[in-house]
Amino acid sequence: MQNFNFNNPVRVIFGKGTIARLGPEAAKAGKKALFVYGGGSIKKNGVYEAVLKTLAENGIETVEHSGVKPNPVLSHVREGVKKAIAEKCSLVVAAGGGSVIDESKAIAAGTRYAGDVWDFFIDKARAKEALPIFTVLTLPATGSEMNSGCVVTNEETKQKYSAGAPVLFPKVSILDPETTIGLPPAQVANGAVDAIAHLVEGYFTTPDPDNAVTDEMVHALARSVIASTERILKDPSDYNARASMMWSATLALNGLASCGYGRMSFINHAIEHSLSAFYDIAHGAGLAIVMPAWFKHHLANGGEERLAKFGAAVFGSGNAQETIKAFEAFFKKAGAPVRLSEAGIPAGDIPAIAANAMGLIKLWGVKADQAEVEKILSGAI
Amino acid sequence: MQNFNFNNPVRVIFGKGTIARLGPEAAKAGKKALFVYGGGSIKKNGVYEAVLKTLAENGIETVEHSGVKPNPVLSHVREGVKKAIAEKCSLVVAAGGGSVIDESKAIAAGTRYAGDVWDFFIDKARAKEALPIFTVLTLPATGSEMNSGCVVTNEETKQKYSAGAPVLFPKVSILDPETTIGLPPAQVANGAVDAIAHLVEGYFTTPDPDNAVTDEMVHALARSVIASTERILKDPSDYNARASMMWSATLALNGLASCGYGRMSFINHAIEHSLSAFYDIAHGAGLAIVMPAWFKHHLANGGEERLAKFGAAVFGSGNAQETIKAFEAFFKKAGAPVRLSEAGIPAGDIPAIAANAMGLIKLWGVKADQAEVEKILSGAI
Repeated sequence: MQNFNFNNPVRVIFGKGTIARLGPEAAKAGKKALFVYGGGSIKKNGVYEAVLKTLAENGIETVEHSGVKPNPVLSHVREGVKKAIAEKCSLVVAAGGGSVIDESKAIAAGTRYAGDVWDFFIDKARAKEALPIFTVLTLPATGSEMNSGCVVTNEETKQKYSAGAPVLFPKVSILDPETTIGLPPAQVANGAVDAIAHLVEGYFTTPDPDNAVTDEMVHALARSVIASTERILKDPSDYNARASMMWSATLALNGLASCGYGRMSFINHAIEHSLSAFYDIAHGAGLAIVMPAWFKHHLANGGEERLAKFGAAVFGSGNAQETIKAFEAFFKKAGAPVRLSEAGIPAGDIPAIAANAMGLIKLWGVKADQAEVEKILSGAI
Repeated sequence: MQNFNFNNPVRVIFGKGTIARLGPEAAKAGKKALFVYGGGSIKKNGVYEAVLKTLAENGIETVEHSGVKPNPVLSHVREGVKKAIAEKCSLVVAAGGGSVIDESKAIAAGTRYAGDVWDFFIDKARAKEALPIFTVLTLPATGSEMNSGCVVTNEETKQKYSAGAPVLFPKVSILDPETTIGLPPAQVANGAVDAIAHLVEGYFTTPDPDNAVTDEMVHALARSVIASTERILKDPSDYNARASMMWSATLALNGLASCGYGRMSFINHAIEHSLSAFYDIAHGAGLAIVMPAWFKHHLANGGEERLAKFGAAVFGSGNAQETIKAFEAFFKKAGAPVRLSEAGIPAGDIPAIAANAMGLIKLWGVKADQAEVEKILSGAI
């Protein structure tokens, strides 16, 4: 077990009817909020009205910044920064999934920075200040509601990069599972795959696998994600399954699931970001394609024991090969693609995808060259 | 799954050689520390010197308050409060197990309160301010290093009561598993039993047991505590087992293991506090006596399904009866007493123990009368 630091100051308010508690919390931070949301799904499920109501009741004026894309883009982040500065906003309220929260974090930091917000994503600068961030989560997946990271795509350079800093932890995140009851099956699938991906990166890439407690936590959360997804597929209105899914996805990337693993590599994410930067597919869909391919590569490179351990604990599988098949079977059952062709991506694009992935692989210090990435991706044909 | 709030701002610094990081963190809070510790075990394992060194190197003066008892007593807390006020301490540094940390929390709050510190324990007042608290944990058990509660015994009234408030979260807790390598087997056993007790109270007393994610977390942590204890019993110098044990015990009572369980009852703790208030036995030892008796009572009162579920996941047992036997077998294997007689407590004392327990049972709102508590305790004869 490697040394680690753990600190996560986010205040989570979880459960039915909790959006009304946003206003009193947000009012402690300021009186004018940039209200960030996506394509309008929050106008259909009542979240939009509930957020405006609690903010207004607590004397908070709102300036809207809508239209955040599923893979949030830099140009829209920059617009948000301009708006927040021009309108003198003193806080940011995000209502949506990980994309909306990620864009909100980037705007919050960009507003308190003299340079260009993209600097945070290419390691040219680290955010030292940010507007206080409040979130209302409507899609369990990325864990952004309880961590200090964010991912944005520079659509000009086709770079889907990440930034992180302690000032980017939300102050308060409201998690009301009822807001997820109407989610389309594809979003349920993508969220489940994303949560699983967060659990496996540390587990399979740790240099020090003698870590009983974190292994147990990873198995526990993976089992919970899988069981909850299966319940949701059967009965989309199953509140307790929605609730377990929501809290599991949050815990999958709030720091807990990697304590003591040491320097993990995030190689699946590095490769996937290239897929969604090029083809604008959902992050979860991209991960469902990359992970089985990477697992096969990992099995051929010393990963047998860990794959067998994970599979035995989570799927009840008998060996490493069966574990990989069980991952694929779950992704398919959830409705996610598991091959490039299933997402309409031609195998001939592999060299270009790999070349693009090298940017992030180098930035994150992942040990892999382009030939290795191409080889991994060839497992997804 | 019930609604819940989760917020835990403690900064955990975990691993080998981390005590040296205390000074720089503590220096942010002040320049004069009340340094609280127990009977002197920290002078044998190098912790005392390491703490003084890092504090001195960072310009922090120390005033020592030693002699904290395993069940910390109110008179000693009051002495600490007087000393901290007289010496104008601006922070508290605790080095030891849960008792030392609990007493430090009480002193930290008592120093910033005009009334008597006992007021916090009998719900006469709630701590609104406290000196900032820094801890170096040397005994994994109570979870006090990452929560906002503390337990103190009023030796005059024989009341072992608890207090809690957000200001009692430590600012920073240093968890170096190497400091636990020399722990005597009895303390390992008591710590393991205490951690298990924290996991089971919510699990078995929740009014809403459809909570896949928290159930999985509880199973995971219980398995980790049990597996780590067994490794430590075999090889006390097994660092990774010590590390897993330490982090598991912390996570068992930092809020995570009860998310969504709703109003849990803590009945085992309420009864145990009476045992250790009367006989000054270790908290873990008392819990190992109370829990099997309470499980038998619980089985007779609708607890069969949960006992079977927990046992299947944690012990591989086939039914509720087997689960209770497996708990007992684990406590015995660890070296803890499982019957009143094994701790030298006469069965004839049961009415007095139960009468004393009623104080806490009423204060905590546990639904049980004295006859029921006596009946539970009769299962421990």
